[in-house]
Amino acid sequence: MTLAQIVAAALAEDLGPGDVTSRACLPADRLAQGRLVAKEAGVLSGLAAAVECFQQVDSQLSLTPCHHEGDPFEAGEMLARVAGPARSLLAAERVTLNFMQRLSGTATLTAEYVRRVAGTRARIVDTRKTTPGLRLLQKAAVRHGGGYNHRWALYDGILIKDNHLAVAGGVRAAVQAARASAPHTLRIEVEVTNLDELTEAITAGADIVLLDNMTVEQLQQAVERAAGQVLLEASGGVRLETVAAIAATGVDYISVGALTHSAPAIDLSLQFTDL
Amino acid sequence: MTLAQIVAAALAEDLGPGDVTSRACLPADRLAQGRLVAKEAGVLSGLAAAVECFQQVDSQLSLTPCHHEGDPFEAGEMLARVAGPARSLLAAERVTLNFMQRLSGTATLTAEYVRRVAGTRARIVDTRKTTPGLRLLQKAAVRHGGGYNHRWALYDGILIKDNHLAVAGGVRAAVQAARASAPHTLRIEVEVTNLDELTEAITAGADIVLLDNMTVEQLQQAVERAAGQVLLEASGGVRLETVAAIAATGVDYISVGALTHSAPAIDLSLQFTDL
Amino acid sequence: MTLAQIVAAALAEDLGPGDVTSRACLPADRLAQGRLVAKEAGVLSGLAAAVECFQQVDSQLSLTPCHHEGDPFEAGEMLARVAGPARSLLAAERVTLNFMQRLSGTATLTAEYVRRVAGTRARIVDTRKTTPGLRLLQKAAVRHGGGYNHRWALYDGILIKDNHLAVAGGVRAAVQAARASAPHTLRIEVEVTNLDELTEAITAGADIVLLDNMTVEQLQQAVERAAGQVLLEASGGVRLETVAAIAATGVDYISVGALTHSAPAIDLSLQFTDL
Amino acid sequence: MTLAQIVAAALAEDLGPGDVTSRACLPADRLAQGRLVAKEAGVLSGLAAAVECFQQVDSQLSLTPCHHEGDPFEAGEMLARVAGPARSLLAAERVTLNFMQRLSGTATLTAEYVRRVAGTRARIVDTRKTTPGLRLLQKAAVRHGGGYNHRWALYDGILIKDNHLAVAGGVRAAVQAARASAPHTLRIEVEVTNLDELTEAITAGADIVLLDNMTVEQLQQAVERAAGQVLLEASGGVRLETVAAIAATGVDYISVGALTHSAPAIDLSLQFTDL
Amino acid sequence: MTLAQIVAAALAEDLGPGDVTSRACLPADRLAQGRLVAKEAGVLSGLAAAVECFQQVDSQLSLTPCHHEGDPFEAGEMLARVAGPARSLLAAERVTLNFMQRLSGTATLTAEYVRRVAGTRARIVDTRKTTPGLRLLQKAAVRHGGGYNHRWALYDGILIKDNHLAVAGGVRAAVQAARASAPHTLRIEVEVTNLDELTEAITAGADIVLLDNMTVEQLQQAVERAAGQVLLEASGGVRLETVAAIAATGVDYISVGALTHSAPAIDLSLQFTDL
Amino acid sequence: MTLAQIVAAALAEDLGPGDVTSRACLPADRLAQGRLVAKEAGVLSGLAAAVECFQQVDSQLSLTPCHHEGDPFEAGEMLARVAGPARSLLAAERVTLNFMQRLSGTATLTAEYVRRVAGTRARIVDTRKTTPGLRLLQKAAVRHGGGYNHRWALYDGILIKDNHLAVAGGVRAAVQAARASAPHTLRIEVEVTNLDELTEAITAGADIVLLDNMTVEQLQQAVERAAGQVLLEASGGVRLETVAAIAATGVDYISVGALTHSAPAIDLSLQFTDL
Repeated sequence: MTLAQIVAAALAEDLGPGDVTSRACLPADRLAQGRLVAKEAGVLSGLAAAVECFQQVDSQLSLTPCHHEGDPFEAGEMLARVAGPARSLLAAERVTLNFMQRLSGTATLTAEYVRRVAGTRARIVDTRKTTPGLRLLQKAAVRHGGGYNHRWALYDGILIKDNHLAVAGGVRAAVQAARASAPHTLRIEVEVTNLDELTEAITAGADIVLLDNMTVEQLQQAVERAAGQVLLEASGGVRLETVAAIAATGVDYISVGALTHSAPAIDLSLQFTDL
Repeated sequence: MTLAQIVAAALAEDLGPGDVTSRACLPADRLAQGRLVAKEAGVLSGLAAAVECFQQVDSQLSLTPCHHEGDPFEAGEMLARVAGPARSLLAAERVTLNFMQRLSGTATLTAEYVRRVAGTRARIVDTRKTTPGLRLLQKAAVRHGGGYNHRWALYDGILIKDNHLAVAGGVRAAVQAARASAPHTLRIEVEVTNLDELTEAITAGADIVLLDNMTVEQLQQAVERAAGQVLLEASGGVRLETVAAIAATGVDYISVGALTHSAPAIDLSLQFTDL
Repeated sequence: MTLAQIVAAALAEDLGPGDVTSRACLPADRLAQGRLVAKEAGVLSGLAAAVECFQQVDSQLSLTPCHHEGDPFEAGEMLARVAGPARSLLAAERVTLNFMQRLSGTATLTAEYVRRVAGTRARIVDTRKTTPGLRLLQKAAVRHGGGYNHRWALYDGILIKDNHLAVAGGVRAAVQAARASAPHTLRIEVEVTNLDELTEAITAGADIVLLDNMTVEQLQQAVERAAGQVLLEASGGVRLETVAAIAATGVDYISVGALTHSAPAIDLSLQFTDL
Repeated sequence: MTLAQIVAAALAEDLGPGDVTSRACLPADRLAQGRLVAKEAGVLSGLAAAVECFQQVDSQLSLTPCHHEGDPFEAGEMLARVAGPARSLLAAERVTLNFMQRLSGTATLTAEYVRRVAGTRARIVDTRKTTPGLRLLQKAAVRHGGGYNHRWALYDGILIKDNHLAVAGGVRAAVQAARASAPHTLRIEVEVTNLDELTEAITAGADIVLLDNMTVEQLQQAVERAAGQVLLEASGGVRLETVAAIAATGVDYISVGALTHSAPAIDLSLQFTDL
Repeated sequence: MTLAQIVAAALAEDLGPGDVTSRACLPADRLAQGRLVAKEAGVLSGLAAAVECFQQVDSQLSLTPCHHEGDPFEAGEMLARVAGPARSLLAAERVTLNFMQRLSGTATLTAEYVRRVAGTRARIVDTRKTTPGLRLLQKAAVRHGGGYNHRWALYDGILIKDNHLAVAGGVRAAVQAARASAPHTLRIEVEVTNLDELTEAITAGADIVLLDNMTVEQLQQAVERAAGQVLLEASGGVRLETVAAIAATGVDYISVGALTHSAPAIDLSLQFTDL
Repeated sequence: MTLAQIVAAALAEDLGPGDVTSRACLPADRLAQGRLVAKEAGVLSGLAAAVECFQQVDSQLSLTPCHHEGDPFEAGEMLARVAGPARSLLAAERVTLNFMQRLSGTATLTAEYVRRVAGTRARIVDTRKTTPGLRLLQKAAVRHGGGYNHRWALYDGILIKDNHLAVAGGVRAAVQAARASAPHTLRIEVEVTNLDELTEAITAGADIVLLDNMTVEQLQQAVERAAGQVLLEASGGVRLETVAAIAATGVDYISVGALTHSAPAIDLSLQFTDL
């Protein structure tokens, strides 16, 4: 789905055949204006979706951002000004906030992870543990927070995981099979759970090795063992409390599922102001 | 969007033109089987989406649940058995988990709120603060957790909020306007922030009053003031720590946005087993 | 479907890969203008669909209404001026008229029902007996004719009918079940066929009672029996000849399926004029 | 739109996120059965749509017709048996009836026109004055009633009407232009309003001539003038009272817009019966 | 599918969640301009698709054609100027060229066939052997090359072919059945393979006869036999080398499947120029 | 678009509101059977689309392949048996053949390229010069012919081409920018036109170098210069006559646009046989 389709689906879900409250209470031609305000601090994401919401609901609506995607903001800060027909503003309000609150939640959590690994070589990367239907926007939110994108989906990266290995007959066989037929534009990444598998992956010709659920000690040994022959990605159970120590081991990438599956929403609100 | 459309969009997002890893590493005709396992305790939701994912990916796949929607489960428990072509299982895995982890997260958090208000008249209800595109499934997850649904969207309930009041000219005018033209099948709910507005709402003919961001003391006074003439809904900043005290005031409904905007995902995984 | 989607489907149905007549007979760059004229009197509805048709066919077309939705018009009156490329005008003509003729038919018939109950408390309301795909527009046409909307669909109103009662075990059981789990924003309406059931409905806690196919005498007795405890809706076999007597009984609502399932089209035509 | 898409749109319109009444009142696993009964006489159309509705709502539903499309039926007659989960039956009921009532209305009215021209060479044909979105089904209903289809849409027949003539410079110029570039698989039809234009159409090489709004006398003269050189179609203001006299003039086709724009619905109902 | 839908599908196929190369290498705000240049001679088709691509990718892009559809061009000639944000130009480039190269290939091949039959009565017509999804554009490309369109699809022309005849019981039976029920706006065409069948077709009332895979001698005899009573279409194995001789026999139409199924693409390229 | 969507669009294009020929000539209940036969030799592709066509048109149709995708076949060979309702077979025939003829054309041409490079290290790979809407199927056809897929689209591979270089400031700057922000799962490929740029690409850290339009001598020098430090892809103007010499230089990949933009269709036909 494109951004326009994602927003159209979200609006259809909330508007359906129309807003009965506004139709019953508000004159059709009344104008209004307001402010989109942060009720807690965070990092901004979701502006593109917000602008698209406003345009789709009514071309007479305007949303004028006070910030760019990726900007930090404080509690109480105004993020955007809005204006237009009152019924249309109220029709766009909730869906707009639903996008911005979640996406800013992801950007904010990503920024905090990135802050904690500053000064190391490690990049914070996302996963495919995204909310169904919102991957396009969540992957952008990770970039807004200073993180990097891992592969987008099943079609643009080779990542051989535990279940593949169980079927393919182990690290060596799987990596060699991938080498034999995969598009040459893709690197080959394989998941390992111990140092012997790491060695096997390197000798089989893997480009990247995902170190699954290893302790900090194991990660250090893996970095030494790899000695720059492959890229290393730490993954599994990474938390804000542990990410700095993981980064200090010298791994190249740290992937964090929570960026997209469990970031709490940032509290935002839309407040009408006098015309 | 129907369930089938939601699932199709999620699969398109992750599969696109195909899984390059499986195509490169796994024989096309290899079968596999596995278990969908909980890595932490929770309340189950998302089975319908999971079954739909499996059917859409490959009609030869099977997913046999060990539980019903709404059942509690423990860490380590098997939630379903799966079997079928290995490539198809791996194609369905991530999207299936993405649905179930989030929806079980909502059901689990809802169940905890419901547990804390047990013995009072208060019902835990959801809001429109849902994830864009997933309202159908999140509203079901709230029911699976023992909660109740508030209005579904803008089209099936009249809820006059602060921004409406600013435009419509106050509680009395807004409620009377709604009375005059709204479908007779809908009750009329209005948001108030103090007891004077509550009285105004009652005399104007409101059916339900939303008490916004009131303290427990204010809520108690509101219950006394209303004296059963209207239904009362407490809303705003409700947390697990405060919900029992709010329920004890005698309000009829407590709406909790966090059920759908900030419930953390429950950790689940799919593990292949020997054939 | 949104208005844009309804119109797009209608145009696709009639235009498909293109108008072979215009392509064969008319120069591509010829301009034309014309008048949309009523060939009989009525009440206007369908302007929004007409404008959308014109925009979708060709952004160079213009349609300038001489009336608002809901306005009455006489035979021979001009309803709108149109202008633009001749091929595009002819491509838009039939679909535009197909919308306006049917919707004005519904508005016109509604207005006649409304006229006949003037001076009573009764509101004329529509039903779900709408034309598949056109509910959005037909419900608006009822409002343009001075009527009110009943519930929109299955999702925004509780109406327990004869077949529900057969399964649920009667009026009392059904109403109580609805009370126990339905969203609190919805009133509960139940259909009854005699006065005993009316009493049962009232004591079970119904908010609205639909009096199905009752005679005028029965309706009068029902109004007395209800004594204002519930809202009353007369339904079934209502005709222009009988609606005044029904309204005089004091019922609150009279629902008329024919507004949307059998209103004859109003004859309109598009006539080119000299440039 | 295909039949499946038309039905899906109609169901989405009525079901949206679900039937709140059934969810509130009926156990999820309750079965039911019933009869689809005619409350007045008519000619059947809409079975294909009805079967599709039932399949789309729930694959466990069954609808067993007692008649074929095009069969006449009497008041009180059973048209089909239905069975399945009670909630699903109630979800499918209204949309199914909405299709069948309108389409049987068209088939019934068509059959009456056909009956009145029996024994003449005239065929009753439809027009493009169909209900937006339902042309596929209405054109079939005309055939079920014994009528014939005119061109389906703008893309499959050449019909040069008054507004084309105004732009193209008259009958001769328009017919010759069509001859020069139209696909050779299409006949060329042109609308005329008097006998001189008829002669002009014949000499210009038209295949079919539409005689617009002519009196019975004019039609007779036209038949004589044409003398079998072209096919003749009478059109405009045809009514049940006048159709026999028009047919007696010897025209080949009589087109009737009312078949699809103003046929009243046939009253049908679904009645649950004891299991 | 409309032009807009065809282009949207093609862009979705190539852009998906975004161009990783441009995102990685190019500043978001860099502008560029360039020329769309022919690398070999041909006849232009595909401009409408090109313009639509540019508009859909980014409303800030411009594409200014130097030619009209149907114009011939030489190798090295500039066909259009383009300008806009560099990332957007690169996103639109490949899909735009993919449309224009194929469609110009069809127009170019058609023009060559048309050139070879100049001076005869024969028209070059296309077939239904089009590329799935592109019929709208390929049929236009045939017109741009100076050819004519045969029936568009199964719905707008009657063409009784060998497999119909096998089921329907021969030429006479099939033509008579078509006469009895087909819309009167369509001519009836039937395929024959020898002169006896041609005679049978004429006496049964066919309007057009398709002469399948006949030699030039057979075609000449068919033209004599028909003597103007029906239109004649030569079809089957027509090649550039043979088309002139076929046209010289006096047939009315020559249908050529290769126009749409095997025309080689014309080589075009987009070259950035200095700002 | 998925396979199902591609096929549905193709069928909608050809069937629209129905096949007027079959409806007019053939009884609705007549069965038929036939053979899908090759009229020239080739390599098979398109079976999956063919099966999908048959299923979508009518679930009572059967298509039983005699070969697998990728199998070579001779002129006159039967490729599949078909059976079912005659009307449905004729409805599915043309679209099915349209898919299979083109896709087998691509597979056949690919196989010929592959045959000519046998014994070298070079792999034949496709490009993004695919037919709009058919990439999914054409990329599979290339694999059926023994070729390999290059990147699928803009989203799954980094290929920095001449126009990127013009904007990004040359090979070094572009490669370094890509290194800095691209997903780590993607290799970085850059296009060069001479040996100096090749050296620049290698030292800047490219993984793959596309050698654009080089002579065989230049390609040999490039292979020596690269000395295994990067993968090398020859591209531009590759023809059947030249591909063996190109492969003999030792390049790793040879990309051929003609596989998907100019492969002529293979002639196939569907012939009914006696029941």
